Amino acid sequence: MELGPPGGSGPAEPGPRLRGLRGADAAASASSLSRFGAEAGCRASAVAAVLPAGGSGERMGVPTPKQFCPILERPLISYTLQALERVSWIKDIIVAVTRENMETMKGIIQRYQHKRISLVEAGVTRHRSIFNGLKALAEDQPNCRLSKPEVVIIHDAVRPFVEEDVLLKVVTAAQEHGCSDYDLEFGTECLHLALKYSHIKAKLVEGSPDLWKVTYKRDLYAAESIIKERISQKVCVVMDTKEDEEHVGHCLEEMLKTELNHVKVTSGQDLQQIILEQCYNFVCVNVMTSDFEETQRLLNMVEESNLSILYPVVVISVHFLDYESVPLGQKMEKVMQIREFAKEAKKRNILLSGLLIYFPQEEQKLRESLRQGTTIISALIKERNSGLIGQLLVA
Amino acid sequence: MELGPPGGSGPAEPGPRLRGLRGADAAASASSLSRFGAEAGCRASAVAAVLPAGGSGERMGVPTPKQFCPILERPLISYTLQALERVSWIKDIIVAVTRENMETMKGIIQRYQHKRISLVEAGVTRHRSIFNGLKALAEDQPNCRLSKPEVVIIHDAVRPFVEEDVLLKVVTAAQEHGCSDYDLEFGTECLHLALKYSHIKAKLVEGSPDLWKVTYKRDLYAAESIIKERISQKVCVVMDTKEDEEHVGHCLEEMLKTELNHVKVTSGQDLQQIILEQCYNFVCVNVMTSDFEETQRLLNMVEESNLSILYPVVVISVHFLDYESVPLGQKMEKVMQIREFAKEAKKRNILLSGLLIYFPQEEQKLRESLRQGTTIISALIKERNSGLIGQLLVA
Repeated sequence: MELGPPGGSGPAEPGPRLRGLRGADAAASASSLSRFGAEAGCRASAVAAVLPAGGSGERMGVPTPKQFCPILERPLISYTLQALERVSWIKDIIVAVTRENMETMKGIIQRYQHKRISLVEAGVTRHRSIFNGLKALAEDQPNCRLSKPEVVIIHDAVRPFVEEDVLLKVVTAAQEHGCSDYDLEFGTECLHLALKYSHIKAKLVEGSPDLWKVTYKRDLYAAESIIKERISQKVCVVMDTKEDEEHVGHCLEEMLKTELNHVKVTSGQDLQQIILEQCYNFVCVNVMTSDFEETQRLLNMVEESNLSILYPVVVISVHFLDYESVPLGQKMEKVMQIREFAKEAKKRNILLSGLLIYFPQEEQKLRESLRQGTTIISALIKERNSGLIGQLLVA
Repeated sequence: MELGPPGGSGPAEPGPRLRGLRGADAAASASSLSRFGAEAGCRASAVAAVLPAGGSGERMGVPTPKQFCPILERPLISYTLQALERVSWIKDIIVAVTRENMETMKGIIQRYQHKRISLVEAGVTRHRSIFNGLKALAEDQPNCRLSKPEVVIIHDAVRPFVEEDVLLKVVTAAQEHGCSDYDLEFGTECLHLALKYSHIKAKLVEGSPDLWKVTYKRDLYAAESIIKERISQKVCVVMDTKEDEEHVGHCLEEMLKTELNHVKVTSGQDLQQIILEQCYNFVCVNVMTSDFEETQRLLNMVEESNLSILYPVVVISVHFLDYESVPLGQKMEKVMQIREFAKEAKKRNILLSGLLIYFPQEEQKLRESLRQGTTIISALIKERNSGLIGQLLVA
């Protein structure tokens, strides 16, 4: 069972002629371990996944094997595990890693709190690694916490963007066609060869262009940009009082909406819920105060929620400034305390910056200030650059 | 004559099985227009390039055809033209664009000062577009400024990273094998098909992994990151006096070298030469003054050089600060003038920011300040974010 992109979106890279079929690399393949269960529907305890992750990543041009290359400081394989963990009906995930990377992998599972993962030792080839994973699932040992699955999804550790619907298609097709993973015997994962030289019932399952494999350094760049874009879509604006929300909140909300997809303004009551819904960007607006009480409260909530374990969370502490009543320098000096807060927050993967927005009485000028503020907020959220934490920006 | 990646680096994308050969898409093909010249060496006036650029970019998932999608605010096709223009022995570059994009394309050529470019109208297919380009080169009209070439390189408008050595290989192979562009007749650019169904002398020329095609949105992200990385390698640190250069310059140079590849410290005499060598990043250090005289001089030189026509140039105006003699707020207020300078500079594609570095007497503390400054400088250069111009950052 192999996965390819949909008909309309062929691959763009020039393929090497002599290894043309390599371009048709398997994205995921499913093998039905037990024929008895093959006819059954996608049942609760029937599916496991095996991730061969023993590669050395020599094509990447970097010393680290590609599955361990960091994206926003987190290893690539952790994103792939996250994508599979989200799928509740995948009961077990077996990762095959080389002996030398076993401790690294254990560290990743612990740090990013991955669940339902078991480790096996990788073989000398990708196929041997898959075989070791399947063997671990098939073994009928007492005290073994792995349950024998009906269908096993084989998924590359370096395809982080796999979606549930595609995985479901693979599993359903495996159940309908009773495909076996003959790859192991033929030493190739290519559907073409399988169809030509064997009697295996292979079927091409339509994938999506998102299902690409991180191979070159440019793919890491692309993956980082995609991940940044995904977590930058939602922003929550916390206003310190109800009245301020009316006054400035709607104006800011409207402008932020031109730059970001989902903007939610709150006065704080439903913050817990918003954090639970995985919003990774917060703007804490302190309309007339220059202290950090509200920001500190927000930082505590984010920290307690474990939200920043998987992604760096951006928090921007906004302070309004009336030039006429307080000199800019004085205000800046006060708000500069943010540097100390930011250093502490960084340890918990929270990227904190300050933003001073000029607050004139005249509506037109206020809108202009807010517009500049919006540009800065948007840049901070989209770039997510830890080199600029603790800075006090001025709009 | 087709180009594929080298043997060791196959494509990573899953290939659609029914259109498997599409994965072997031509990166560039060369046709010898005149057989008489085919045996000759790579002569000065013998080579032209045709760029089919009539595509609609529907796979990209964005409304703009991909060749016109902006990377650092400049259309992708301009990067491809720049890559070909750099090759002095390519005498003419013919771009085939649709009638509706003709004015856009003329605007791009003018704005980015491209040379040796002629435009022809694109056909309904890629092959018709190539044909129109070849026809323009073959026509023997009086007053026609195009010279009849021996070899024509066909190059996709959406492969911006082509290097001279690869182009030379294609031309040499075309001359040796006398390959004709039979693609036009067969309606496919695939070497496999050409070899199988025709008697054309086709040869696979090894390309490089850099020769990839921008197809999906993720490829645009990757291209932007690659371009940013390339122009972020060199930084020039301009110190205001010779003595300061001794004192702080070496320290800063040493730290910047841990983040960026080429760091050049100057007191200004050879600035013109450094600009000519295409350095896109400048740090202007004003050790004890808070005015912008030096920065303004640098901005003027960058502007006059036309350096910022192709890429946004980053200029960071660094000011040192002795907390004990001048209050932070007062210094900040003074340096905040940078916002006005930055607005003006942005119009000329120069991204100006300010950086205040704490300057204590104690060596250890000074090094700590400079280290923080280095992190910020590096972040500004690598991100090249126009949303953060005119800001005064503090290290």
